[in-house]
Amino acid sequence: MSALFSEIIGGVTAPEGFVAGAGFAAIKEGSTRKYDLALILSAAPTVGAATFTTNKVKAAPVRVSMVHLRSADLRAIIANSGNANACTGCVGIEHAKRMTKAVAAALKLRERQVLVCSTGRIGVEMPIQRIEREIAVLPKALKKNGSQNAARAIMTSDTFAKEIAVELKLGGALVRIGGIAKGAGMIDPNMATMLCFLSTDAALGKKELQSALSVAVEQSFNRITIDGDMSTNDTAILLANGLAGNAPIRKGSPEAKLFQAALNYVTRALACMMVEDGEGVSKFVEVEVKGAATFQDARKAAEAVANSTLVKCAWFGGDPNWGRIMDAIGYSSARMREEMVDIFYDGLSAVKNGVASKTPFGKLREVAARKRFKVTIDLQLGAAEYTVFTTDLTTRYVELNMGE
Amino acid sequence: MSALFSEIIGGVTAPEGFVAGAGFAAIKEGSTRKYDLALILSAAPTVGAATFTTNKVKAAPVRVSMVHLRSADLRAIIANSGNANACTGCVGIEHAKRMTKAVAAALKLRERQVLVCSTGRIGVEMPIQRIEREIAVLPKALKKNGSQNAARAIMTSDTFAKEIAVELKLGGALVRIGGIAKGAGMIDPNMATMLCFLSTDAALGKKELQSALSVAVEQSFNRITIDGDMSTNDTAILLANGLAGNAPIRKGSPEAKLFQAALNYVTRALACMMVEDGEGVSKFVEVEVKGAATFQDARKAAEAVANSTLVKCAWFGGDPNWGRIMDAIGYSSARMREEMVDIFYDGLSAVKNGVASKTPFGKLREVAARKRFKVTIDLQLGAAEYTVFTTDLTTRYVELNMGE
Repeated sequence: MSALFSEIIGGVTAPEGFVAGAGFAAIKEGSTRKYDLALILSAAPTVGAATFTTNKVKAAPVRVSMVHLRSADLRAIIANSGNANACTGCVGIEHAKRMTKAVAAALKLRERQVLVCSTGRIGVEMPIQRIEREIAVLPKALKKNGSQNAARAIMTSDTFAKEIAVELKLGGALVRIGGIAKGAGMIDPNMATMLCFLSTDAALGKKELQSALSVAVEQSFNRITIDGDMSTNDTAILLANGLAGNAPIRKGSPEAKLFQAALNYVTRALACMMVEDGEGVSKFVEVEVKGAATFQDARKAAEAVANSTLVKCAWFGGDPNWGRIMDAIGYSSARMREEMVDIFYDGLSAVKNGVASKTPFGKLREVAARKRFKVTIDLQLGAAEYTVFTTDLTTRYVELNMGE
Repeated sequence: MSALFSEIIGGVTAPEGFVAGAGFAAIKEGSTRKYDLALILSAAPTVGAATFTTNKVKAAPVRVSMVHLRSADLRAIIANSGNANACTGCVGIEHAKRMTKAVAAALKLRERQVLVCSTGRIGVEMPIQRIEREIAVLPKALKKNGSQNAARAIMTSDTFAKEIAVELKLGGALVRIGGIAKGAGMIDPNMATMLCFLSTDAALGKKELQSALSVAVEQSFNRITIDGDMSTNDTAILLANGLAGNAPIRKGSPEAKLFQAALNYVTRALACMMVEDGEGVSKFVEVEVKGAATFQDARKAAEAVANSTLVKCAWFGGDPNWGRIMDAIGYSSARMREEMVDIFYDGLSAVKNGVASKTPFGKLREVAARKRFKVTIDLQLGAAEYTVFTTDLTTRYVELNMGE
């Protein structure tokens, strides 16, 4: 981490004026008493930015939040786990709206000041009355140190709560950025079953905020892939309430660059936590493609390698099977010339100009046996680069996804 | 099967004038005595057609066969398992050529009359001297009933030899079409680690033959997917020697249609055997998309569903998880409207207009528990259709692909 900002505790409630809390509404049939409702509130009006799933099948809360995001004065986020409220038709839309309405009633806000998110099984109606009853008492759970509880409440098959916060000096003022997230399976570039709620007490305009969030998401959540699937519910939200008292950040200024760097750090850290906590994952692999003719070529090649089930199975077994990597690059639609390709495992040459390098196979095996390693692919055709963060594919992943 | 043609025994050697045989050259280090070299020979000159992998990384034998295919008088196919001879650079090309040269020497042919194919691990040099020694004695193994042995010799992780033949009346003459194939993992639309050698004693021109093969491959090998990966070595070859004595088949004639139907049947049967024999497969699933706006939309939607690891894991567990199917259709780039989509399991409604149908979940579970079932997706936007044949994703698949 750069010395320009430093990590602090507090997650999404670290920034001034944010509180959070969690409750239990037994949303998933037969679930034990685990938090399944999270509420985040800003004491002061905020401007909001968000990125949503690009899946054409969008969950009801995504559709509702897309509309509410246009409000000038956002104040709260309500989120649940245990039910995605996706493929639930008009009833689903009504339920998502009733969740924002319940929060508005409990906190004396307008519905449009509330964003709503859901994650869980698709195609099941929400137990909306239980949820409304729990939301009514949820304000009592709001606390300055409530980030951890909120992070727990949005977990599905995640095994640990994901939160982080940083602080930085911005033109004399002390500014904070915090966030919580959930990930696990179905993580793919262009977002996945992931929810991420970010907060900051910095002051900046809605356009600047959206631009900063889009850049941050592009280099974090859009760079991770576990199983290549992309969910109906993916959402990243950033609320800024300006309570730090800095002069509003202007586009292109040194302050904007610093804010962006800190936000990138926060989102990248949360994204890497998601990969590490991918369902049944045993390895964390960084796939870097360089020397590509274009950015799109670099991206296609990196994603083809990171999503190849054969490559991922080989990694699970600690097999540095570069033949499968060559194969995946070849069927990606990236421009490539077989005889130009170099491949490295943690800097160790595996392939030189398209054929096996002189590195003893045992040395490559040592790298592939590590819990974390980096695969670098140099196409030697240009200057474009792209990196994705991914995992192996394990028998445990299959077991976890065999049924509910 | 239509009554216009009937299945016969004999595989690739069923057509007049074809013989085949197998040998052992210990191509894979430490392999036990299992056939790993197959030779197919036509007693009479043939015209040849072929389709090759679209992977940009093409194995050396693919590059050599692409050139030799231009010859007017093809006579033999030499194929090995245990080594793909891919990513082996100039040495690989030399070795592939030496294989055709050895066959030419042993059978008194010209090199360019011989096609060559390989399948196995990528990036390992061929034990070319052992192969040459074995090829020298391979003609002695050629037999009229040698199809089964040749089919065994090209097996890698296949668990059974794949062969089929049919005969049909064509303008008074009795014509035969036969074939052998290997499949297993890495099977994807646009071919995969699959080799398929087809023979016929029908008389037809090179252009007509290529056109017939392309149509047949499109509705068979290009419709199957196991893990979405596509190999460097995929090849389907069809040789026609005209010994049946029929009048040469003319494009658009009734005879051409009948020949096409029979060839489609042969390739579809071999493709389905590959899916059934996919690595660690426990279920055979037909995914049909209809009502799509265009053929490409239907194809994209079907392939996204058939390649979704989450959908495939659910099938493994007998879970008719239609939410994951909706999700996959949504992130495929196919045009779709969530509220128009209907989904069926073996004709039983699971989704009606984008939401859960009234069918009890237990009934859908019964279908998903079957060893074979069909998923039908009706997008209700147009008249285009596409079908792919696929499998579940099992813990056994992961174990089989963890390393060599």
